[in-house]
Amino acid sequence: MIYFDNAATTKPDKDCLGRAEKYLTDQFYNPSALYAEGYNLHLDLRSARESILSHIADKNAYELIITSCGSEADNQAVFCAGRRGNIVTTSGEHAAVYSAVSEAKLRGGDVRFAKLNADGSVNEESLLSLVDKDTSLVSVIHVNNETGAVNDINSLAAKVKKINSRTVFHSDGVQAYGKLPYRLSQNVDLYSLSAHKIGALKGTGALIKRKTLNIKPYIYGGGQENGLRSGTENVFGIKMLEYAADKVYGNLQENYKKISAVKGRLCELLDKNIFTVLSPQSGSPYILTVAAEGVRGETALHAVNDKGLIIGTGSACSSNAAKRHSRVITACGINDKLADSVLRISFCCNNTAEEAELAAEILNKTVGELKEALK
Amino acid sequence: MIYFDNAATTKPDKDCLGRAEKYLTDQFYNPSALYAEGYNLHLDLRSARESILSHIADKNAYELIITSCGSEADNQAVFCAGRRGNIVTTSGEHAAVYSAVSEAKLRGGDVRFAKLNADGSVNEESLLSLVDKDTSLVSVIHVNNETGAVNDINSLAAKVKKINSRTVFHSDGVQAYGKLPYRLSQNVDLYSLSAHKIGALKGTGALIKRKTLNIKPYIYGGGQENGLRSGTENVFGIKMLEYAADKVYGNLQENYKKISAVKGRLCELLDKNIFTVLSPQSGSPYILTVAAEGVRGETALHAVNDKGLIIGTGSACSSNAAKRHSRVITACGINDKLADSVLRISFCCNNTAEEAELAAEILNKTVGELKEALK
Repeated sequence: MIYFDNAATTKPDKDCLGRAEKYLTDQFYNPSALYAEGYNLHLDLRSARESILSHIADKNAYELIITSCGSEADNQAVFCAGRRGNIVTTSGEHAAVYSAVSEAKLRGGDVRFAKLNADGSVNEESLLSLVDKDTSLVSVIHVNNETGAVNDINSLAAKVKKINSRTVFHSDGVQAYGKLPYRLSQNVDLYSLSAHKIGALKGTGALIKRKTLNIKPYIYGGGQENGLRSGTENVFGIKMLEYAADKVYGNLQENYKKISAVKGRLCELLDKNIFTVLSPQSGSPYILTVAAEGVRGETALHAVNDKGLIIGTGSACSSNAAKRHSRVITACGINDKLADSVLRISFCCNNTAEEAELAAEILNKTVGELKEALK
Repeated sequence: MIYFDNAATTKPDKDCLGRAEKYLTDQFYNPSALYAEGYNLHLDLRSARESILSHIADKNAYELIITSCGSEADNQAVFCAGRRGNIVTTSGEHAAVYSAVSEAKLRGGDVRFAKLNADGSVNEESLLSLVDKDTSLVSVIHVNNETGAVNDINSLAAKVKKINSRTVFHSDGVQAYGKLPYRLSQNVDLYSLSAHKIGALKGTGALIKRKTLNIKPYIYGGGQENGLRSGTENVFGIKMLEYAADKVYGNLQENYKKISAVKGRLCELLDKNIFTVLSPQSGSPYILTVAAEGVRGETALHAVNDKGLIIGTGSACSSNAAKRHSRVITACGINDKLADSVLRISFCCNNTAEEAELAAEILNKTVGELKEALK
């Protein structure tokens, strides 16, 4: 089986599991407990938070709130930082931001959606035209999870702050963390990430927060995470995130180069009579979105799955949202016929050019035959 | 080491880890994915939810929303069911309910706290006197996590519904699930539980909901958990909860009898010149709370830890809440001097009478010497 649906979730890294295993067995204590066994875990968590954060941000200026997933981090950003005035976001957000701001709108909030460019990146002019003196929050996804388009969040945040210095700037970085080379500038106030997209586990995410920004918790209780996220800390999941981040950031440039070649090779080999590439050249190398007009995405997905290739049709996170077309793909201005046939092929740092070659062969043959048969 | 702080967290069960391991390694897919490997996990989760629920509730009348912890389940109950009129709760709630309703109060909500009896159970008369036609939510903890007192939630819920049939009745069942024999009556609308208190993992909890009750999600996004809790499902954690629940419910009566004997033996052997038992006779056998007047709880905890016994001083969940006295213990009417010296000794189903005997010896000797020295 070739697994090319890594934007949906990744296989937990074996080495990291080996390192973290003790937190599942012997070191199971409650990190809030007063005895030495608990306190030692408290220290282990402190170093984990610092390490996870330091890969992309200045640890003197930022702190890390561990959450249960990227979605929770996004919800905390929206509901705790977007409380007054208006919220400005984009039509290309992940469901965790989109559904949260939609709920804020239902409750009477003023929510404004910036247009997308054809590749799925936000239209800068549209975004900035929506920001005004009453904007409490701007939320812009870092890497579009359906097309791989990259938004220059540091630049956008700086421009937003020029219009309104009090506006909080948040970015969902779930598809960027551990994959792209970047560091957060001081204009980015909040940043979400997820563990299971980089070889760690489902059930762990984080919200990076500029230290001088005050926000309320979203989950109240015993006061864990410096009072900003209650609930007994999931030590095993947090250490797995630390170890997986160490590993991907230890080889970030090499991985980037290697996966760019994997994506390039697949792109090159795909039959252009069958596939239209929707992802931008300048996008994340980890995501390649294509459309095979005339063949429904789901049909193609099942057909190539039978041949040993696992790919996606878009955001796997949109569970039960049985809409025919993706909201994000439609916002890119892609017509219904093409939107119907979207396939998302996404990589992790362990994928190889050989896998790309085999995948291209399967895709060309299987989807090509389907296209012929459905003509 | 004797581990008697199981109300704070339990050691993950080895057999269950063995059974669930495949979800960490081979079966890592996203359960929302359309291909067979993902869909199979979707089915595995469906059976897990049903199984976890069925131990205490009618699966035709209730459904299970998987959350990231008991605290999140409590927050969802408070913020999503307590939106109008007033909220009635008790002075004996876990921080996850107490802090959430305190936040609701800060936002302008009418929150009413019922008094406790001396053992930590809620005073029924006080509770019912606070419920009126505008009460949207009543939240009563099932087993008090600091004293082990058991509230008869089915009976209380029935009486609340007699006063106002539209009131939603919620109970935090974190210290009850997997430990006491009971089933939810139809008057209980919402019920929280936590995985890591019964041999499963930190990072998984659940909110049981009466099917005909409509509440909003607390975490918005891809629409997982039937639209009521978004975020990629933590399959490993959920299956661990299923397996651990299967195991404890498979021996519920035997465990209850055995741990009652463990608690009884420890109680019997504790030197009554040193220790005052605060837990009620009728309380959960899994929690024994005592006070050693004259010796601060934290001092005793560290001293017995040095001798190989791990116990708590109250709620380990109240991270960083460095208040001298527990809010709940004070609400029981216990004086400051005694409240200062509280120790919580809590069991899991694997504990033995031999451990209780050894623990009594350590406690009598160590705390006795401290008491003498501090006289």
